[in-house]
Amino acid sequence: MKRYRNGEIWDFEHEVAVASNRQVILGLDGGTTSTVCICMPIMPFSDTLPDPLPVLARAVAGCSNHNSVGETAARETLEQVMADALSKSGSNRSAVRAVCLAVSGVNHPTDEQRILTWLRDIFPSHVKLYVRNDAVAALASGTMGKLHGCVLIAGTGTIAYGFTEDGREARAAGAGPVLGDWGSGYGIAALALTAVIRAHDGRGPHTMLESTILQTLGLSSADELIGWTYADPSWARIAALVPVVVSCAEAGDEVANKILKEAVQELALSVKAVVQRLGLCGEDEKNSFPLVMVGGVLEANQRWDIGREVMDFISKDYPGALPIRPKVIIVKSSPSGRYKYYPHYCV
Amino acid sequence: MKRYRNGEIWDFEHEVAVASNRQVILGLDGGTTSTVCICMPIMPFSDTLPDPLPVLARAVAGCSNHNSVGETAARETLEQVMADALSKSGSNRSAVRAVCLAVSGVNHPTDEQRILTWLRDIFPSHVKLYVRNDAVAALASGTMGKLHGCVLIAGTGTIAYGFTEDGREARAAGAGPVLGDWGSGYGIAALALTAVIRAHDGRGPHTMLESTILQTLGLSSADELIGWTYADPSWARIAALVPVVVSCAEAGDEVANKILKEAVQELALSVKAVVQRLGLCGEDEKNSFPLVMVGGVLEANQRWDIGREVMDFISKDYPGALPIRPKVIIVKSSPSGRYKYYPHYCV
Repeated sequence: MKRYRNGEIWDFEHEVAVASNRQVILGLDGGTTSTVCICMPIMPFSDTLPDPLPVLARAVAGCSNHNSVGETAARETLEQVMADALSKSGSNRSAVRAVCLAVSGVNHPTDEQRILTWLRDIFPSHVKLYVRNDAVAALASGTMGKLHGCVLIAGTGTIAYGFTEDGREARAAGAGPVLGDWGSGYGIAALALTAVIRAHDGRGPHTMLESTILQTLGLSSADELIGWTYADPSWARIAALVPVVVSCAEAGDEVANKILKEAVQELALSVKAVVQRLGLCGEDEKNSFPLVMVGGVLEANQRWDIGREVMDFISKDYPGALPIRPKVIIVKSSPSGRYKYYPHYCV
Repeated sequence: MKRYRNGEIWDFEHEVAVASNRQVILGLDGGTTSTVCICMPIMPFSDTLPDPLPVLARAVAGCSNHNSVGETAARETLEQVMADALSKSGSNRSAVRAVCLAVSGVNHPTDEQRILTWLRDIFPSHVKLYVRNDAVAALASGTMGKLHGCVLIAGTGTIAYGFTEDGREARAAGAGPVLGDWGSGYGIAALALTAVIRAHDGRGPHTMLESTILQTLGLSSADELIGWTYADPSWARIAALVPVVVSCAEAGDEVANKILKEAVQELALSVKAVVQRLGLCGEDEKNSFPLVMVGGVLEANQRWDIGREVMDFISKDYPGALPIRPKVIIVKSSPSGRYKYYPHYCV
């Protein structure tokens, strides 16, 4: 087997005796903040998933969106997290039968093809490879694997992605911070930082965000925000300020409230665009369809509940939208030390 | 003399015999798209500048805004362009008496201090060093060197910067694309790219920008724009699309027109914030003050004339604002091969 980069990532395969000849699959959820890979044994095909899932190992790494951190860093993260999951499970690449990579930043067939070509250099040719946008995995996580309905992700980035029952698909947003993902965590936080600069230089109204954000970042003046912002291109680092914006909005700050309200409208608009293009709501706009909602921005469950507000907005137009918030509880069972997943669904 | 990076930048000092022991100064205008350094002989102090200016050499390089390309690349550009100007003039660093660096991205005393410390490693200790935001040089270029009034730069980036006659100063915008410089060339172009994505995925209205921008970039679908956008972090590369937006607006595209109108309001707002904070317009808001306007966005002089629209907006509030558009004509005189500057002012 070839290696994408020289050496050390796959060294464990020579150093550790492989536990068994069990065949495994790798499933990977790659986001702009973090990337998770699980290793599972191959199971007989079934309409229902075992509960708990027999997860052999789980590995976590950072951002794997090539648009955010560049292609080299994204690939290293993906390769490392797959190697970690295999190593933890006591397997190696010869045990792998299939790899499913669901990665943010896969926006075009050429993105998919590039990653597939690269995976072919890592795994033997008989391994089945699937590469999709992470929204596809997020939808499946809320529909027990069925690709029908719409998913809205709002974490560091945001995307709405939908499928009809006959396999047509559509997406909206997911184009990153330069291209108007204003409802994302990055979008919310960048507008809050902008509000601080504008309040400071006289272009915008006074806002509590100024003192709160400067205090959070340990800065003494708004001018220092410029250097802080460009010192590191990571999108996740900016998005981490969302809780500060929510707390200012809850404390009554008008600027913070306006930013969150606009984000809600943007997120709802993404879903509506997908639902409309796919006709998920039927001709009378009342058909029911699953609407899976995931990501830190939607799951914060603060008093200012962005997820609930988005759902309220969508329900007005599409009363048949059935919100699903998939929750996955991870239990590390002893004495085997293996991870098991208990999927929980809140409909 | 020490060297910031190993070797080759200053190698010419050993290889070429220095023409004379003439003393020189270096003046550098560093922007987000390009950086220009001129080398001039020291002249007796005078209220008027010689016309044409006795420029010995001129060197041009790319972006030197550390917030855009990172600190290492910005420094290399600054060092290279200074070395090129000295080399072309037949001088070396021992002839330099003063260096004035006016660089975009100098937003805080720590930025200034960092560059000064680094310059100290390049030049002998007796050389006088000045580091300022490039807006300060831009203002001086329109006021024959006097720091009074307000300057608006709108090129790849944008900033408004002003001085009172008694030396108080204020600025607005200039915080880069993440922090709301929506009137900049980058801001205009990023909103146009966003409009293409939104038209394509159903969130926004149809716009002529879609076909025009895709054609300009040689792309076949809007999805490809995402990869194109993040393939290169250069701000100038995005801003280069402004002429496409202007041509679509001139052809009657509503989306493009809205983007330009909002940019005009943003640019005017930056100037107003500075004028207001410094009280440049006096208590009755009618005092006259110079308003220097520079940068590709303001100077395009298309039928859709952004600079004129901005001026119209500002004049409504401050009838005393005196627009100045400095123009510098460069003539390479023969047979000496030396550059001479003929400053021209349009009031």
